[in-house]
Parts: sequence; structure tokens; C-alpha cells
Amino acid sequence: MEPGLLLLVLDLAGTFVFALSGATAGVRRRLDLFGVLVLSFVAANSGGIARDLLIGAVPPSAIRDWRYLAASLLAGTVTFLWAPWIERLRNPVRLFDAAGLALFAVVGASKALAFGLHPVMAALLGMLSGIGGGIVRDVLLAEVPLVLRADLYAVAALAGATVVVVGEWAALPPMAAMCAGAVLCFVLRACAIRYGWGLPVAGRWDPIGQPPARKPDAEA
Amino acid sequence: MEPGLLLLVLDLAGTFVFALSGATAGVRRRLDLFGVLVLSFVAANSGGIARDLLIGAVPPSAIRDWRYLAASLLAGTVTFLWAPWIERLRNPVRLFDAAGLALFAVVGASKALAFGLHPVMAALLGMLSGIGGGIVRDVLLAEVPLVLRADLYAVAALAGATVVVVGEWAALPPMAAMCAGAVLCFVLRACAIRYGWGLPVAGRWDPIGQPPARKPDAEA
Amino acid sequence: MEPGLLLLVLDLAGTFVFALSGATAGVRRRLDLFGVLVLSFVAANSGGIARDLLIGAVPPSAIRDWRYLAASLLAGTVTFLWAPWIERLRNPVRLFDAAGLALFAVVGASKALAFGLHPVMAALLGMLSGIGGGIVRDVLLAEVPLVLRADLYAVAALAGATVVVVGEWAALPPMAAMCAGAVLCFVLRACAIRYGWGLPVAGRWDPIGQPPARKPDAEA
Repeated sequence: MEPGLLLLVLDLAGTFVFALSGATAGVRRRLDLFGVLVLSFVAANSGGIARDLLIGAVPPSAIRDWRYLAASLLAGTVTFLWAPWIERLRNPVRLFDAAGLALFAVVGASKALAFGLHPVMAALLGMLSGIGGGIVRDVLLAEVPLVLRADLYAVAALAGATVVVVGEWAALPPMAAMCAGAVLCFVLRACAIRYGWGLPVAGRWDPIGQPPARKPDAEA
Repeated sequence: MEPGLLLLVLDLAGTFVFALSGATAGVRRRLDLFGVLVLSFVAANSGGIARDLLIGAVPPSAIRDWRYLAASLLAGTVTFLWAPWIERLRNPVRLFDAAGLALFAVVGASKALAFGLHPVMAALLGMLSGIGGGIVRDVLLAEVPLVLRADLYAVAALAGATVVVVGEWAALPPMAAMCAGAVLCFVLRACAIRYGWGLPVAGRWDPIGQPPARKPDAEA
Repeated sequence: MEPGLLLLVLDLAGTFVFALSGATAGVRRRLDLFGVLVLSFVAANSGGIARDLLIGAVPPSAIRDWRYLAASLLAGTVTFLWAPWIERLRNPVRLFDAAGLALFAVVGASKALAFGLHPVMAALLGMLSGIGGGIVRDVLLAEVPLVLRADLYAVAALAGATVVVVGEWAALPPMAAMCAGAVLCFVLRACAIRYGWGLPVAGRWDPIGQPPARKPDAEA
């Protein structure tokens, strides 16, 4: 399999699992079929679209290439029809989501580097590719984005993207760096799910303050 | 009247009625004058701005051409001054809104085709032109966008935009296809208002579950 | 100091104070460290990024130039570590925020003019540069943007940006116009804070209606 084709397949697989997470959130909020399909597409493609707009790659891949749309709509339809069944698969879906995050982060960083961005920014745009979809999904549902308040999610994406950027700087073979970055991101995220790893919250130790914003149950 | 001028007039008319819907929502939430004007502009122009950013037509028409701004501000000011009177016109305004949706959908699809997008994407961008403003309006008001949860709104826009795309493929005269698409969208939307047509919601038949998200009264 | 360098320094100072406002809002909502840093960056740079996307200046400065990121992250880290101390500085921070607003408005209008936009649109894009960050900050926190419902905030930015546009039209020296605009914006905003100036809200005088949306305490 040539690298370009492999990248595309991984990208579409990531799109599919992210779309599952968006559709699941939509079904839970009892959106209609159209709303569920929109959330599928948005959760799967907003990160990449934002990245492409920011680096000047218009029209964004998700708009130019119908396969991203097809993967999103397929995931949305599947979820709409068999939502209770997908719900029961919560843990597998979270692992798939971690895989999608890993793929998007390394592919996004790689694309930003190819467009000549500063390495630090390329790493951040890789992270944005991974987390952007979930942010827009939550904004559309009028919730504070989960990624801003829970777990080691964005940091895992940033770590994976950073490996790609460092690999480029060290002139490693791109595919090796991408694989290493994706594995690092996936392992970090899987450990965060398994062991409840999170980042610190700024200390306000008043016991009668507002309750913490973290809602572990809201996770897709 | 030449086609270009006709398109502009229709586009400005659609802008005006969409701005009415945004301003009405702002007045209801007791925003100040500036907030109402911003919601007018946003509700009327976000869909077109998003479409233009995605197809690479920068600066977007709504930014380059002051007439879209003028139409939006006029509608916002009218609503701000005579809000109770506009409220009483709810049903006419909903029909105007359906007309705006029809116009934006066919104009948007036509513009996306002119920028060389894949036909499927052109139809979706036509739909986005029609529904994008309402989505941003609701996000700014911290609500789940109405279009994701109620009625046959986006589907009507998609149907109208699809007619334009199919017309282009069948080499029909563009104006004929646009008229047919606009009429189809308007009729679908008017029927959805009149008969309460909607899309299915994923089945969860537990009677004590959370109440459905659909709020027909929240419609502009 | 040459004008370009002065502009950069002012721009970075504005970025820093806006990032403080974003980070403060994030700490209040008990986001984790990453969420606080994201809100810092978003509050400081969304306005400029939106402006740059709209005028076609991609990649936006905030993405191309690592110093905007550095200023944002520095402000976010400072706030995260010493949040209660920053809270106590509420009034100084509000004045800094007014200074940031003034700087962003005049710099934004100036940049839009340089990209050949219509003067009215350049003034509005200057305003957007100033208020965009706060809008995205509030949307991410699932709140109705403060700027839409309180005080003379956006109008102050618009006034400052208008001075720059009129100065360009009258062929005044750019730096003089920018200074005058920034001073006007700052003074208007400071007076609004001091004397509670605001814009009218559309009249609905029913005493048992919904409470006004204005929440003075939510201000950064």
C-alpha cells in the first residue's frame, strides 16, 4: 500500500469513528435524523476544516472529497438506526475514538508542515484537527466542550502531533514518525480512559463553591 | 431585468427576512440594540460567509458588498423599534423566512457550482447557505440550533439546492432550474409549517425519559 | 521606535490582556489547565483570526507568528497559577481589557483597509477584531456573549475603528488617526465601566417578564 493511500484509509477510518461519537451525542439529545447526520459530519470534519481554512487549503478536503461526507453519513445512519446497540458498545467506541484522535493528530500535523507552517503551530494544528470536531459538536449542543474540562484528551493529541513535528526536524522517515506519534497519542488516551488521568484544575478550595464542571458521564 | 440583477435583488430580499428572524430572536432574549443588530447580520449572512470561506471566495460577498450589511441593519432596526408588531406578524414572517431559505439555497448551490465544486458538495453548500445563519444565531443565544431538531427545514433547502445541481447536470437553463428549486423548497417548507411535517427521531420509547428537544414555539 | 514594531508591541500587549480575560473565565468555570490555556488563546486571537480569514490573509497572523501564542499561553499560565490574585485585580484587568479593545480595534481596521476593503466594512472588521475573541470565549462556555447584552463595549470598538477609517479617508497620518481612535475607544469604554453606560433594550415593560439577560458580574 503506498503512503498516500494508507493515509487516506486511516483518515477515513478516523472520520467514521468521530462521526459515530457525534451521532451518538445527537441521538442522546433527541435530535431528528437530519440533526444527527449534521452532528456526524461536524464532529468528524470540523477539526480538519478549521485546519484547512487556517493554513489556506481551500476548499478543505472534507468539502472537496465526497468520501469524507460518505463516511460521516454512513456512521450517522448506522447510529441513528441502532443507537441503543452503539450505546452498549461505549467502551469499544471510546477506543475507536482514541484511534481517530491519534490518526487525525498526526495527519493534521503532517499536512500543516507540508503547507510550511512554523513547527510549533503545526503541532497545534495537528491537535486542532483532532479536537476541533468534538468542540464544534459540543458547541452545537450548547454545552461546554468536553475537551476543555475532562481527561487527557487534547494533550494526547498534542503529544502525537509533536512527535511528527520533531520527526520532521530530525529528518526521520515521515511514516515512522507518524506511526510513533499515533501510537503515543493512542496509548496516552487509552491510559487516561483506563486510569482516569486528568490535568489539574485551578485551586479554589472553598467547599461550598460551584460544583466542578467535569461530567465524566457526558463523554462520547 | 437581467439575471445578475435579479439574483442580487432576491439575495437582498432573503437577507432582509433572515435578518428579521435574527433580530426577533435577539429582542426576545432582551439583548441591547447592538446585540440585536449583530444577530440580524449574523442570522442573515453567516450561511453565505461560511459558504464563501469554504469555497475560497474571499472576502465573502457579505463583507465585500455593503448592501448586505445595509439590508441586515435595516431589518434589525425595524425589529428593534417595532418588535411587538413584528411578533404579531409571526406567520407572515415564517413565510418570508421560507422564501429566504429558498432563495439562499438555490443561489448558494449555484455559486458553489460556479466555483467548480463537486455536485453533491454544491448541493450541501446550498443547504448550508440557507441554514447556516440560523445555526450561528442559535449558537450565539446558547441554544441547540432549531434546524437540528425541528421540522422539515434543512431538508427543504437541500431539495431546492439539489434541483439546481441536477439542472446544471442536465444542462437546463440555469434560471429555470433555480426557479424550480426555489419553488420546491418554498412549498416543502410551507407544508412543513402548515402540517407539522418533520423527520423521525431515533427511537427511545421510555415514557419517563428526558422530554423531546423539539420546541415548536421557539421558531422565528 | 518604528511604526511596525510599535504596532507589534501594542498588538502583543492587547493579546496578553485579552488572554487574561479568557483564562479568568475558564478558571471560574473550573476548566482544567488545558481548557484554561485554550480559552486564553481563543479569547485573545479569535477576533484577529476571524478578520484575517474574512479578508483572505491566510494563514492568520495568530497562526503564523508564534509570539501571539506565547503571549496567550503566558497569560493563561499566570492566571491559572494565581487566579485568586488576578480576581482581586478585577478593576485593573477591566482597564487593561479596555486598552486591549482599543488596540485591537484600531489595528484591525488598519489591516482591513490595507487589504482594500470598503471603509464601512473596515470599521466593522476593526470592531470584530476587538470583540470576536470575547464572543468565541463565551460561546465555548455555552453563554450568550456578554458583548451582545451589556454595556458600551462593541460600540466603543466601532468608534475607535471608525476614527481610523475616517483618518485614512481624510489622508491624516495613519499613526495619528490610530492614536486618536484608540484613545476614543478607551475613554468610551472606561466611562461605560465607571458610569454604567449602556445601549437601550427593546421595550417590553411587563414587570413579570423574564429577567433581563444583563449580568454585570459575569464581566471579565
